[in-house]
Amino acid sequence: MGNILNNIKSPGDIHELDTEELYKLSQEIRTFLIDSVSKTGGHLSSNLGVVELTLSLYKSYNLEKDKIVWDVGHQTYIHKMLSGRKDKFGTLRKYQGLCGFPKRCESKYDAFGAGHSSTSISAAVGIARARDVLKEDFDVVAVIGDGALTGGMALEALNDVGFNKTNLTIVLNDNQMSISKNVGGLSNHLNKLRVGPGYNKLKEDISSTLNGSSIGKVLNNSIHKVKDSIKQLLVPSMFFEGMGIKYIGPIDGHDIDMMNDVLTKAKLINGPVIVHVITQKGRGYEFAEKNPNKYHGVSPFDLESGETNINPKKTYSKVFGDTMIELAENDDRVVAITAAMPDGTGLKEFSKKYPNRFFDVGIAEEHATTLAAGMASAGLKPIFAVYSTFLQRAFDQIIHDVCIQNLPVIFAIDRAGIVGEDGETHQGVFDLSYLSQIPNLKVLAPKHLDELSLMLKWAIKQNGPVAIRYPRGSDCCDEIIPISEINYGKWEKIIEGENVAIIATGKMVQHSLIARRKLLELGYNPTIINATFIKPLDLKMLSELVQKGFNIVTVEDNMVNGGFGSYVLMELNRMGFNGEFRALGFKDEFVPHGDVTNLYKDAGLDPKGIKDCIVEIQE
Amino acid sequence: MGNILNNIKSPGDIHELDTEELYKLSQEIRTFLIDSVSKTGGHLSSNLGVVELTLSLYKSYNLEKDKIVWDVGHQTYIHKMLSGRKDKFGTLRKYQGLCGFPKRCESKYDAFGAGHSSTSISAAVGIARARDVLKEDFDVVAVIGDGALTGGMALEALNDVGFNKTNLTIVLNDNQMSISKNVGGLSNHLNKLRVGPGYNKLKEDISSTLNGSSIGKVLNNSIHKVKDSIKQLLVPSMFFEGMGIKYIGPIDGHDIDMMNDVLTKAKLINGPVIVHVITQKGRGYEFAEKNPNKYHGVSPFDLESGETNINPKKTYSKVFGDTMIELAENDDRVVAITAAMPDGTGLKEFSKKYPNRFFDVGIAEEHATTLAAGMASAGLKPIFAVYSTFLQRAFDQIIHDVCIQNLPVIFAIDRAGIVGEDGETHQGVFDLSYLSQIPNLKVLAPKHLDELSLMLKWAIKQNGPVAIRYPRGSDCCDEIIPISEINYGKWEKIIEGENVAIIATGKMVQHSLIARRKLLELGYNPTIINATFIKPLDLKMLSELVQKGFNIVTVEDNMVNGGFGSYVLMELNRMGFNGEFRALGFKDEFVPHGDVTNLYKDAGLDPKGIKDCIVEIQE
Repeated sequence: MGNILNNIKSPGDIHELDTEELYKLSQEIRTFLIDSVSKTGGHLSSNLGVVELTLSLYKSYNLEKDKIVWDVGHQTYIHKMLSGRKDKFGTLRKYQGLCGFPKRCESKYDAFGAGHSSTSISAAVGIARARDVLKEDFDVVAVIGDGALTGGMALEALNDVGFNKTNLTIVLNDNQMSISKNVGGLSNHLNKLRVGPGYNKLKEDISSTLNGSSIGKVLNNSIHKVKDSIKQLLVPSMFFEGMGIKYIGPIDGHDIDMMNDVLTKAKLINGPVIVHVITQKGRGYEFAEKNPNKYHGVSPFDLESGETNINPKKTYSKVFGDTMIELAENDDRVVAITAAMPDGTGLKEFSKKYPNRFFDVGIAEEHATTLAAGMASAGLKPIFAVYSTFLQRAFDQIIHDVCIQNLPVIFAIDRAGIVGEDGETHQGVFDLSYLSQIPNLKVLAPKHLDELSLMLKWAIKQNGPVAIRYPRGSDCCDEIIPISEINYGKWEKIIEGENVAIIATGKMVQHSLIARRKLLELGYNPTIINATFIKPLDLKMLSELVQKGFNIVTVEDNMVNGGFGSYVLMELNRMGFNGEFRALGFKDEFVPHGDVTNLYKDAGLDPKGIKDCIVEIQE
Repeated sequence: MGNILNNIKSPGDIHELDTEELYKLSQEIRTFLIDSVSKTGGHLSSNLGVVELTLSLYKSYNLEKDKIVWDVGHQTYIHKMLSGRKDKFGTLRKYQGLCGFPKRCESKYDAFGAGHSSTSISAAVGIARARDVLKEDFDVVAVIGDGALTGGMALEALNDVGFNKTNLTIVLNDNQMSISKNVGGLSNHLNKLRVGPGYNKLKEDISSTLNGSSIGKVLNNSIHKVKDSIKQLLVPSMFFEGMGIKYIGPIDGHDIDMMNDVLTKAKLINGPVIVHVITQKGRGYEFAEKNPNKYHGVSPFDLESGETNINPKKTYSKVFGDTMIELAENDDRVVAITAAMPDGTGLKEFSKKYPNRFFDVGIAEEHATTLAAGMASAGLKPIFAVYSTFLQRAFDQIIHDVCIQNLPVIFAIDRAGIVGEDGETHQGVFDLSYLSQIPNLKVLAPKHLDELSLMLKWAIKQNGPVAIRYPRGSDCCDEIIPISEINYGKWEKIIEGENVAIIATGKMVQHSLIARRKLLELGYNPTIINATFIKPLDLKMLSELVQKGFNIVTVEDNMVNGGFGSYVLMELNRMGFNGEFRALGFKDEFVPHGDVTNLYKDAGLDPKGIKDCIVEIQE
């Protein structure tokens, strides 16, 4: 039996294969992919959708010199398999294993790293302009999904490239989905293109766009007569043409020959070209085809039944979603905003129950934030539910539109702290630092699921902006008891101990309580404080600790730089503190992918790390 | 003589005026505006361009209930005059005077604050949706320039509103300029619209877009026959129509009747409408018409000659521009990027000398940053010149695309520290905090003009990202001597003193040296250190101070929160420091507008404030 996939050692090997072999290979890839991801977990649907597209890109380009920039990058598993990394798939997204996204340090075939959405066109334009300035000769391709195209920076990039006519090909991988179903005017526009006449008239169309290239001149004479019909054809693509970018499509993203033909010809066109490719998310695995959302990012699952292991524990996202419904029931002014994450953030039920008070704005965190500010200025109580690292996109809007105006917008920040397998681009370890520096903003973190609910109910009553950050998943320590009410700027003293105090935020309170068990055995009895408020700090409680002569250790699942601990130390300095102080948190490096247990351990943020720190400080 | 302007006490007064009176008023406004700004300085050209537009908005809407959201907001002087603030124009942009931008706390007629670009549509959509959720009844208008439309978040907002069909009017104020000449595919597209057939066919056009409204139904029957020609007319506006937004225009932004007619009818259209208005920047003042850029933001000037007081001192922007040319001469890989600020950043000469290595991407800081990352990944040495607060827009891209990949992108950050008259939205007081928390990034600040040049030359040799932040304007202390070379992570000890050390960054070194004169008289002789590197810190020099038992004061023109001082204190704590420590910087409030002298004084960052701190700590 001729297993083609096993014989692919480097990208160039694809050039040797004919169409029949490529289709056979696509079957082998699907089998390998489904089997592999069923064991490791990972992004399945998006990869199943781009099998043929990846093969066509490999066939049409020379990856030894040409550069392919993948947007977001969770759809690069096929690319990784074909560029020498197939044998590492057992380690996918595992600690020190293969990364789930493209990464320059992992392979020379990963032209540009990714993780967040909408960056590929900007990066590809940069690479193409570098080529032109340095007078080099290679092709550049950006692959971007229709969901990612709604992100502002992708549109900024289109505006730039359409004006400056940089030579590159943009493959628009259109599967009508972000993670969930796509929204937006552009999405509607793409829908019209899909049902337009383009599909059948393709070959004439390509010829007409080859004006200016050598092959174009030859073809041009023979196609004058079809120009008018093509003009009509191009009307629906005026969005892109209006930007100054040639548009070809739509074409079938599972038809390898057609894609090879189009991609090869697109290279010959001067200036930027968009190739609009229609793909099916989840293609080739029945369960994923039916429910691409479920298999977008998936835990290990049973191959035959498609059953996934669902964490039976209540998650923070679930508590958030439930509380939102409760808040909305009691107050007509409560509305929810998401940037293309109705499922991940737990807002699905809310969106069904209150469709007129639910706003999915697409992948558009900047707009979402200022939209919320506008709503708050006109009397609503908007809650923007967003992942920690994605909110980085709206840093300026938080300052400029929300906090300068002191508007009552609530940021419900999910996936704060480390998320694990998604790695560097997704670890929510900056939020305490970037939020705490902003005047007027109050920053909170629950140590227990139920505290999230309390905090939201407290936040809705405030007349200014509030950020509540909480982790992925659930609680890890069964012995904790939630507080019964939120008092502005007041921390919770959970354990009254001796000599040393641990002041921890959010999930780190749980680690601290576990650490305490061992510490008690060793003869240490630390005070344990739940810093419900990261900002403002509880100066009264801090001052008491100083007066009692306690040593102090802060614990946060955030960077030490600019983090909670540094704010505590600044206050301690003002209070004339002269005990020992340690700030535990992530040091000045990006946190890689892997299971959270190992990552906490490496950072000294697991219970043992906290215990060791207390022992060291008290010795 | 009937002075109309003086009789306008509130916005409703405009409703009483007929066309002739409105034109007369527009003349009075221009006279008052030019005279007033010639004395105070401020934004002139953009305001001269929107005199008639503002009058039309006032005539067509009822500002007691309707909301107008102005983008950027430097074009709201007319609006301020007409809404009860005319008498305060002598205090424009002055300390505790009238703000140069719309501000909710200044007037109930300022529906939403601004300062940065591209936020108005998002905010207006938010206000409109609040109206709909709360079942209220009023009209919402966003006024946005063609330059601001290239900002990603404006495009995100169009995508959202085109899909969800929120009722509002977007006035596209098209003057073909940002501050400088506009760039981008969209700009080209608008150019085509300007010369299209729209202008003359306007009335039929409006009628056709009234489908669905009551007035539309009546008109619809009579206009069936012109549908085809209108369809043709609408082709050039397919960019907006593709997004799902009705387009009307272009119309003459100095023709009050025509605008009243269009705006009144636009209200009747269901869903979002764009009204494309052509205005002339600087209109009515000869010098500003000829050179709108020069009078965009202008110092006081002579009314007759148009002569402005040009600061004869060399500025940091000038040094930056000159150094860029020098760098480019010596290294073909050096390229410059700006987000619509070729003049302000000092890159004008560079753009003329190296047009192929100069990239103006429009108002698009996110794209600019990832574009730079792409360029760096492919062998260029990109320098992105940008103002401190505008770089806030690219916070995620700095982390995600530049620093995670450790790419050699240089951020030349102008207008760091306080800029004065532009106020809260423009004070560059967050950069040290938001940049220092990011791994891999080196952060520097020159204390002297010439050090900026040295730092750029040093940065260009690095293999990772570097941020250099420097203030608006020039140096204020003549006695300072620039260092002769940059050594990685090494500070400069300018004065070896006794007992206490002042560690200052950038311009604050100058203030510290001035403070020292007085301190010497009082018998104090502080060590003065120039912290050339904010990150990494010079741990060796810090350690020496600790060993000598010095007290330490840090001085930065940045927020204390998350700032340089907090990093120094964290290191001092690790070193077992037990002296006195103070961190001088801006406290946890937004810094208002005004002259920098007063603002420094309020913050205790003027030489006297520094002196007082040293005296207090040493007593």
